[in-house]
Amino acid sequence: MLNRNIENFIGCDASYEESKIVIFGAPFDSTTSFRPGTRFASRAMRADSFGLETYSPYLDRDLEDAAVFDSGDLELCIGDAKMALKDIEERAGIILEDGKLPVMIGGEHLVTLGAFKAALSKYPDLHIIHFDAHADLREDYLGAGLSHACVLRRCWELTGDGRIHQFGIRSGDRSEFMWAQEGHVEMRKFDFDGLEKCLESIQGKPVYLTVDLDVLDPSVFPGTGTPEAGGVTFTELLEALGKVCRMADVKACDVNELCPSYDASGVSTAVACKVLRELLLMLRV
Amino acid sequence: MLNRNIENFIGCDASYEESKIVIFGAPFDSTTSFRPGTRFASRAMRADSFGLETYSPYLDRDLEDAAVFDSGDLELCIGDAKMALKDIEERAGIILEDGKLPVMIGGEHLVTLGAFKAALSKYPDLHIIHFDAHADLREDYLGAGLSHACVLRRCWELTGDGRIHQFGIRSGDRSEFMWAQEGHVEMRKFDFDGLEKCLESIQGKPVYLTVDLDVLDPSVFPGTGTPEAGGVTFTELLEALGKVCRMADVKACDVNELCPSYDASGVSTAVACKVLRELLLMLRV
Amino acid sequence: MLNRNIENFIGCDASYEESKIVIFGAPFDSTTSFRPGTRFASRAMRADSFGLETYSPYLDRDLEDAAVFDSGDLELCIGDAKMALKDIEERAGIILEDGKLPVMIGGEHLVTLGAFKAALSKYPDLHIIHFDAHADLREDYLGAGLSHACVLRRCWELTGDGRIHQFGIRSGDRSEFMWAQEGHVEMRKFDFDGLEKCLESIQGKPVYLTVDLDVLDPSVFPGTGTPEAGGVTFTELLEALGKVCRMADVKACDVNELCPSYDASGVSTAVACKVLRELLLMLRV
Amino acid sequence: MLNRNIENFIGCDASYEESKIVIFGAPFDSTTSFRPGTRFASRAMRADSFGLETYSPYLDRDLEDAAVFDSGDLELCIGDAKMALKDIEERAGIILEDGKLPVMIGGEHLVTLGAFKAALSKYPDLHIIHFDAHADLREDYLGAGLSHACVLRRCWELTGDGRIHQFGIRSGDRSEFMWAQEGHVEMRKFDFDGLEKCLESIQGKPVYLTVDLDVLDPSVFPGTGTPEAGGVTFTELLEALGKVCRMADVKACDVNELCPSYDASGVSTAVACKVLRELLLMLRV
Amino acid sequence: MLNRNIENFIGCDASYEESKIVIFGAPFDSTTSFRPGTRFASRAMRADSFGLETYSPYLDRDLEDAAVFDSGDLELCIGDAKMALKDIEERAGIILEDGKLPVMIGGEHLVTLGAFKAALSKYPDLHIIHFDAHADLREDYLGAGLSHACVLRRCWELTGDGRIHQFGIRSGDRSEFMWAQEGHVEMRKFDFDGLEKCLESIQGKPVYLTVDLDVLDPSVFPGTGTPEAGGVTFTELLEALGKVCRMADVKACDVNELCPSYDASGVSTAVACKVLRELLLMLRV
Amino acid sequence: MLNRNIENFIGCDASYEESKIVIFGAPFDSTTSFRPGTRFASRAMRADSFGLETYSPYLDRDLEDAAVFDSGDLELCIGDAKMALKDIEERAGIILEDGKLPVMIGGEHLVTLGAFKAALSKYPDLHIIHFDAHADLREDYLGAGLSHACVLRRCWELTGDGRIHQFGIRSGDRSEFMWAQEGHVEMRKFDFDGLEKCLESIQGKPVYLTVDLDVLDPSVFPGTGTPEAGGVTFTELLEALGKVCRMADVKACDVNELCPSYDASGVSTAVACKVLRELLLMLRV
Repeated sequence: MLNRNIENFIGCDASYEESKIVIFGAPFDSTTSFRPGTRFASRAMRADSFGLETYSPYLDRDLEDAAVFDSGDLELCIGDAKMALKDIEERAGIILEDGKLPVMIGGEHLVTLGAFKAALSKYPDLHIIHFDAHADLREDYLGAGLSHACVLRRCWELTGDGRIHQFGIRSGDRSEFMWAQEGHVEMRKFDFDGLEKCLESIQGKPVYLTVDLDVLDPSVFPGTGTPEAGGVTFTELLEALGKVCRMADVKACDVNELCPSYDASGVSTAVACKVLRELLLMLRV
Repeated sequence: MLNRNIENFIGCDASYEESKIVIFGAPFDSTTSFRPGTRFASRAMRADSFGLETYSPYLDRDLEDAAVFDSGDLELCIGDAKMALKDIEERAGIILEDGKLPVMIGGEHLVTLGAFKAALSKYPDLHIIHFDAHADLREDYLGAGLSHACVLRRCWELTGDGRIHQFGIRSGDRSEFMWAQEGHVEMRKFDFDGLEKCLESIQGKPVYLTVDLDVLDPSVFPGTGTPEAGGVTFTELLEALGKVCRMADVKACDVNELCPSYDASGVSTAVACKVLRELLLMLRV
Repeated sequence: MLNRNIENFIGCDASYEESKIVIFGAPFDSTTSFRPGTRFASRAMRADSFGLETYSPYLDRDLEDAAVFDSGDLELCIGDAKMALKDIEERAGIILEDGKLPVMIGGEHLVTLGAFKAALSKYPDLHIIHFDAHADLREDYLGAGLSHACVLRRCWELTGDGRIHQFGIRSGDRSEFMWAQEGHVEMRKFDFDGLEKCLESIQGKPVYLTVDLDVLDPSVFPGTGTPEAGGVTFTELLEALGKVCRMADVKACDVNELCPSYDASGVSTAVACKVLRELLLMLRV
Repeated sequence: MLNRNIENFIGCDASYEESKIVIFGAPFDSTTSFRPGTRFASRAMRADSFGLETYSPYLDRDLEDAAVFDSGDLELCIGDAKMALKDIEERAGIILEDGKLPVMIGGEHLVTLGAFKAALSKYPDLHIIHFDAHADLREDYLGAGLSHACVLRRCWELTGDGRIHQFGIRSGDRSEFMWAQEGHVEMRKFDFDGLEKCLESIQGKPVYLTVDLDVLDPSVFPGTGTPEAGGVTFTELLEALGKVCRMADVKACDVNELCPSYDASGVSTAVACKVLRELLLMLRV
Repeated sequence: MLNRNIENFIGCDASYEESKIVIFGAPFDSTTSFRPGTRFASRAMRADSFGLETYSPYLDRDLEDAAVFDSGDLELCIGDAKMALKDIEERAGIILEDGKLPVMIGGEHLVTLGAFKAALSKYPDLHIIHFDAHADLREDYLGAGLSHACVLRRCWELTGDGRIHQFGIRSGDRSEFMWAQEGHVEMRKFDFDGLEKCLESIQGKPVYLTVDLDVLDPSVFPGTGTPEAGGVTFTELLEALGKVCRMADVKACDVNELCPSYDASGVSTAVACKVLRELLLMLRV
Repeated sequence: MLNRNIENFIGCDASYEESKIVIFGAPFDSTTSFRPGTRFASRAMRADSFGLETYSPYLDRDLEDAAVFDSGDLELCIGDAKMALKDIEERAGIILEDGKLPVMIGGEHLVTLGAFKAALSKYPDLHIIHFDAHADLREDYLGAGLSHACVLRRCWELTGDGRIHQFGIRSGDRSEFMWAQEGHVEMRKFDFDGLEKCLESIQGKPVYLTVDLDVLDPSVFPGTGTPEAGGVTFTELLEALGKVCRMADVKACDVNELCPSYDASGVSTAVACKVLRELLLMLRV
């Protein structure tokens, strides 16, 4: 008798019961204002993860020893952000209830709002570490509040001041930067300077880590909807992720904004896969 | 003194006052369920129209003699179908009120609903001639009623039975075909057989013509979100459009579902431009 | 508790026990002499099958009613044709032993040899119906006998004269055409003329159907390693497949030579998916 | 001792002395008004010709038996049409003087002017058979007389009325069509109707055959600078070429306007190669 | 009443009268010796500028406060460098006469010659700051003097020794480097070392700034005709531009050699847009 | 009389007799486990080398002064690694016997085994300097010993411990890294640290230099089958090559793993060409 065709991110073959980390995909990009297509990210990453090794020579650890389960993609209602966010919140909620750490693959950045809500409801004093090229702090975007460009603002509405910590930001409209400077969020422009100090300041707090991969320079990661020159290197991102995972108590996380069709070389998908592998091996669970 | 940079579809340089036909773009694709990107169609068509002549050797007419005005693209709220449809309805309404014929460039097929509403409010006994590969007759799509896959069903809710006439249909789920067979709409599968008879039957009625360009075979028109093998040829489409424009009283129309980024050869955009040129020259105004 | 990520060709969700048809992928292309990449076909078809409906308006049947199981891809040793063919033969053999009809997705055309051997061992008087642009009848290719360019010749060595029936052939070296004319195989150049007569002549015999998708014109199906202008249309192929499935006793079959990366529009993959859907619905099991 | 790296169009390996046909490439596209890139055509055709067989099942002839020499590409001064045309005229002249038939691979269509001049100087009563989507009959293009859009007009200035015979034309500005109708040239729109009659009328005359490959429908041949929907099929073109080669006394010819980079599938280059192979085998020398 | 479709580079919406800086496009690439296509740069930059913010977090300035007018593209005669350069010179001349600073978007680098001439005629002691991978100092290119490969040599003929200052140069033939070393121009290889010293040495002089974007490393900016590994980073270019704009009296400038079709990811166009935004905000007017 | 079409890598026009370095291509990629296509590298490099100058401003040397002969590509049996390696060994052997230095252009990395064998038979104490992202030290890959993933292991079987020196390695399975640590090979992870010390330690020994271009960061070199983020820069690679060529006695070398079709921008091919030019100019012969 033959088996069904199971497709996991490479090395994520633990049973649900034994797993400590659970991956899921959130293929949604309906509010992407410039170039859409991140809905195809999770599928592309699973497929191309087979060009990657399970072993990390950086960490000398192997995904085959990590206890990771890949629960596949949600079937989200393209075109209806509210319904999509509700489904995302529910999936993240189940994983958290089961005592596991959810790792979401976006989709556009708006999907963070769903998973963050689930985590916030379990960890009311949750902080956000946010790596991104874009501030995502708008009040609304052409009238819509549920937009990728507003996602951190929506999160802030749930946490209040001082709980969001942004790094690598190099794009936004003037009002976003001014609003940040008013002290609502901690924003570090261009790079990761001050990350360690920030992590020390929130030691002991639960943390939601959200990684918009466009924080990387477009030379490293061209496959994204809104490439922004002047970003961080792959090595800088790995080091920053290492610091977060070592120093902070990450309870949930996501990587998002890979848009595979904009990089036919496959490099961006390969980079996203490698970031995810390293992250999965870094998370302390 | 230098002038601002005006970009029109080639040959559409009449003043608004003298124009009889008014083009506008509806760059919206938030509900596209498979592969998005039609939001870039109108801009690509304007740019590549300069590879096209204004003269049609088919019709021996020239766009330079037609009185067409290009009013540019709407700025639609990506992610919010309701708001987008309202803006579309408003633009089409203005053009109709001014006694001109609106020609909308989509965008995904859902945009038709906005323009159709505007035309229906002026012509309550409006019929729809619909060329498409897909039936677009679903009750809902993953829970959403405002979806490209439901757009003709939404139109039907406004007109009732017998007012929608579909040609070229070769894809849909079983329930759509069954629902059509119950007599709610007239559906011709695969080709344009029966078009003349249909046009005779609605002679004298005002008509909204909606052309989903994926009615064309993907060999002719690969640049679309959901290519469906087995479509009509370019010549067959031109002939069918000619029949509609000669025999029916077209009051408004649209061409939609070009997704330029899926056809890097530029052929699909060139085909869309040529269909639009011929249509503009065929319309009796 | 969450489920693993199962990925099937759309609508092929029957259990193995209840299934009558079993799909498997043979991602192998090591002997491709010109442009490789067919190894990615089966995965691309599963992914893009979600742009396709399960319902066929041609046949008025639905994959959801067919009893098809998708057993996923073999993990074949790239670079070693012998080992790969052995694994293919084994998988096809299991399916045939279990009384089900194997449908293999290539891969390059050489994979046919493995599945054909399995079927031949169950049905010693097996005939081959072969749709292709290329004759594939070489004695060897640069010294290698196990090559896509020789696959039908290798099959012929197992069957002897008169058991292979080729249609649509429009490419090969002179010696292949001369060898065919000596009567070893029945070869119809360019189209499907004579197919019905051929099918009548082998009525009652078991048949292996192998469809090299490059029999289609490259305008319809550009995504293949060696495109050959002057091929058949999609409709002609559908009709020919319909005749084979109605008139012949197909015991096993394959579709092969889709190379998705050569057609970034996705049309070729969509065409392959539609051919497979129609074939699955046509097969009498 | 090792040999230098010789690269010919497949099967064109005769010595110059024994050859009856001589190929050369004219990689020039400086006046291309829309999308440039035909300068890469001849090189791409040589490279991809190795995906083609030397044997034609249409004609049952083989390039290995034809006496064709490939003299490589001219090094033309990009940016200076006059200098480029002079070099082309010289190369074609040498081949004609040596009693051989020149077959030029363009480049944009302007290159025809150089080779035509060389042939006209040997055959003063030379006629032109011209297959193209575009009339190429403009007096000038933005002030420049040496433009691809004017090439047949420049030829006409050398021959006078009645010596140019155009087929497949489906694009141009109104003045070109009007000028043609004044009787300066014979123009057949859209297809090859009347070709045989035309060929009969010029029986015995020397003929220059120029094939702008965009006469093909863009579905068959997307890789060209200015694709024009509504063209002829591959089979129709082969048949028309067969008629010309059988009925007319072709003294020189060219195929032009392949722009390989616009068709990443490689199909257009493959089509161009196959057209060239058939043409080389059809020419009576 | 509806408005015409105006398309500006983002945020460049000042009236001509109030503007201090005037953009224009010079879509010309007829002399490009390797891979053409820069003619599409200005249009692509306007279109994709909408993925960019008007606000610069580097400078804390906003294009909405700058007084920039976008006068669109010239319609240049493709194929005739002399005519094209004359039109460019005329447009730049009008802008300079009106007391505004012209910012030209190329096109290939030859276009600089036209704008430079206009500026030189107003500022006879004009210096050139030249950022580029290529020296562009050839006497001629395959016989043509008006070639992108000779543009700085042509400028030198107008200025004499010591007025051209090149940075980042890493490609050229030997004679170009030797000629530069003879002291005709100041050439800095590979990077911007010595830029400040150079700027000090020409303090008070009027400056024409020409930026060939291929000075950037191809990892950052792959979309150019002749990519040269080993270039500067985006940050290094920004810093160098900042120095020039702060320390020198820039009277006119250009950015050129973006070839959008060679970078389907859109990153190169995004980089060019960001360089232009920063430059527009840096210029002291 | 006209000449045949000779195509060399730019500037490699010496006669075989006078040449000291001989290039050949090994277009083989049958064992590539992830994404194939390196078979097209040597041809692409010859074609695109014409976008490169023969002069190096890094070294102030010119290929026109170097004595390099380009012997073209081997015609290797795709699908049969043993036969291919034998042909490669033979070609490298002829060049070595003639007292010249072979420079092979891959192809996948397995081709190194053939050329290395030829060199080892002339220089029994040959060492290998290996630049790569991947360790390539597997015992077998899915059962096959002749695989790109095993090539250095196969070489080790011929040399024993201590003769292979790897730099830049950042990918492999755990067992490869463990096996290396057992002392069989010298492996430096991620970068070139320790290269000089290594070169000192093998001073006076003959060296085979093998450069897998994926040692470069994918931002610099995306066009490869298995891109691995975190690689070295172009400048770092040039410097490392300079050290090897100055300090070691290189007897044979290769550059491999360019897969041109994965980088449509052409940058990767341009980078490979520039690496090859610099290497040819650095080699002491």
